[in-house]
Amino acid sequence: MTADIIPPAFVLIRPQMGENIGAAARAMWNFGLDRMRLVAPRDGWPNPSAIAMASGAGRLLDAAQAFDGVGAAIADCTHVYATTARPRELTKPVMTPEAAMRDAARRAAVGERVAVMFGPERAGMENADVALASTIVSVPVNPEFPSLNLAQCVLLMGYEWRRATTETAPVRLEGQRTELADRVEIERLGDHYEQRLEEAGFFYPDHKAEGMRLNLRNLWARQALTRAEVQMLHGIMRQMVRWKERG
Amino acid sequence: MTADIIPPAFVLIRPQMGENIGAAARAMWNFGLDRMRLVAPRDGWPNPSAIAMASGAGRLLDAAQAFDGVGAAIADCTHVYATTARPRELTKPVMTPEAAMRDAARRAAVGERVAVMFGPERAGMENADVALASTIVSVPVNPEFPSLNLAQCVLLMGYEWRRATTETAPVRLEGQRTELADRVEIERLGDHYEQRLEEAGFFYPDHKAEGMRLNLRNLWARQALTRAEVQMLHGIMRQMVRWKERG
Repeated sequence: MTADIIPPAFVLIRPQMGENIGAAARAMWNFGLDRMRLVAPRDGWPNPSAIAMASGAGRLLDAAQAFDGVGAAIADCTHVYATTARPRELTKPVMTPEAAMRDAARRAAVGERVAVMFGPERAGMENADVALASTIVSVPVNPEFPSLNLAQCVLLMGYEWRRATTETAPVRLEGQRTELADRVEIERLGDHYEQRLEEAGFFYPDHKAEGMRLNLRNLWARQALTRAEVQMLHGIMRQMVRWKERG
Repeated sequence: MTADIIPPAFVLIRPQMGENIGAAARAMWNFGLDRMRLVAPRDGWPNPSAIAMASGAGRLLDAAQAFDGVGAAIADCTHVYATTARPRELTKPVMTPEAAMRDAARRAAVGERVAVMFGPERAGMENADVALASTIVSVPVNPEFPSLNLAQCVLLMGYEWRRATTETAPVRLEGQRTELADRVEIERLGDHYEQRLEEAGFFYPDHKAEGMRLNLRNLWARQALTRAEVQMLHGIMRQMVRWKERG
């Protein structure tokens, strides 16, 4: 099934600066999206400033389709998202970027063709264009400073599309020697330290000794120590003993 | 409790272009973050290009603290995230931006002081700096084009911080008249259409009539229609009848 998924088209409506079109292409390609559509770009198409700015993502601009109107740009789509403020006149579902791109991924997985529309830099989308959308996407910005630019908005939607379609472990341990120590190894490490520190007179005074031993065990236990780290901690203690024995 | 939360400091390590510092300030403030720290900015501090670029978020630059070294910049922090590739030499937990900022929000909620470090534009972070971090944050970019710039990386981390700390309904219906019709109203609408269409001879031929009626009921039922929309649909049918009766 996955092979048949058509990723969303990102539709830039009446974009003004070529640089912003190029930056939008880069932001799309950062997250693996390459289906750009343009509606009536102000400075015509192709646009040399867009190409200069898109370095590395120029292929998207070569393949970008330009249309005269929004209707033509989304004619083949079954579900269209508009990234914009909601016009007061229209009743529409409003989704967060995450919910919208999860919805888009579900739809694409069953063969739907989806598109995400972005308005021009300053004026924003016209109501007639927003009315063509199925759903509005609202980015939860700081209400005191809601000034996302075109490429930033494209970046966030691309990011959420990739999150919705790519499995990434939320937390993982990486490194050359990432095998974690098991509980037995942690216990042996505790034994080793406790024994040596006992000899060294560390657990003093007596009435605090039990608490100190407990804290020491806990210190190792609550870390996710790798085997290599456990070996290093053994080595540190051995070295301290050797140093002491040399006198 | 919420009042006591200290939001993360965003630490820019040896940033080069003033414009990028300004763009990072804007990206932070887009998501309500205002604690910027700078480590050895190449062109000194304060920086006029940064101020020019930050328009609207200049307050962050006025309040930004500059430090000579990374250690001093994060000295008061209990947990530090590094947005960078993992150096091969270090074993570290690696988190997605979402997992990292949820972790940061949990820590901040119990009084921890957290920071997020960002490397210089081209060279990236030095291993000695990464070693100071508790956790590495890896943005799931397209491996063919992993070219996020400084302000884009700041934007994504700010976005995830805000997502982790602000409740936003993932899907909501907005508009002037958003009260949804209940099932009785939907049924009445179905009755109205079915009755009139029956009179109009719509359900033909007979062996298909039952399926057609079912599809008609389903058409209304599976939409989330508002009361206003139901009234409009009644009005459409009434108008068609009037039009027919006028002959």
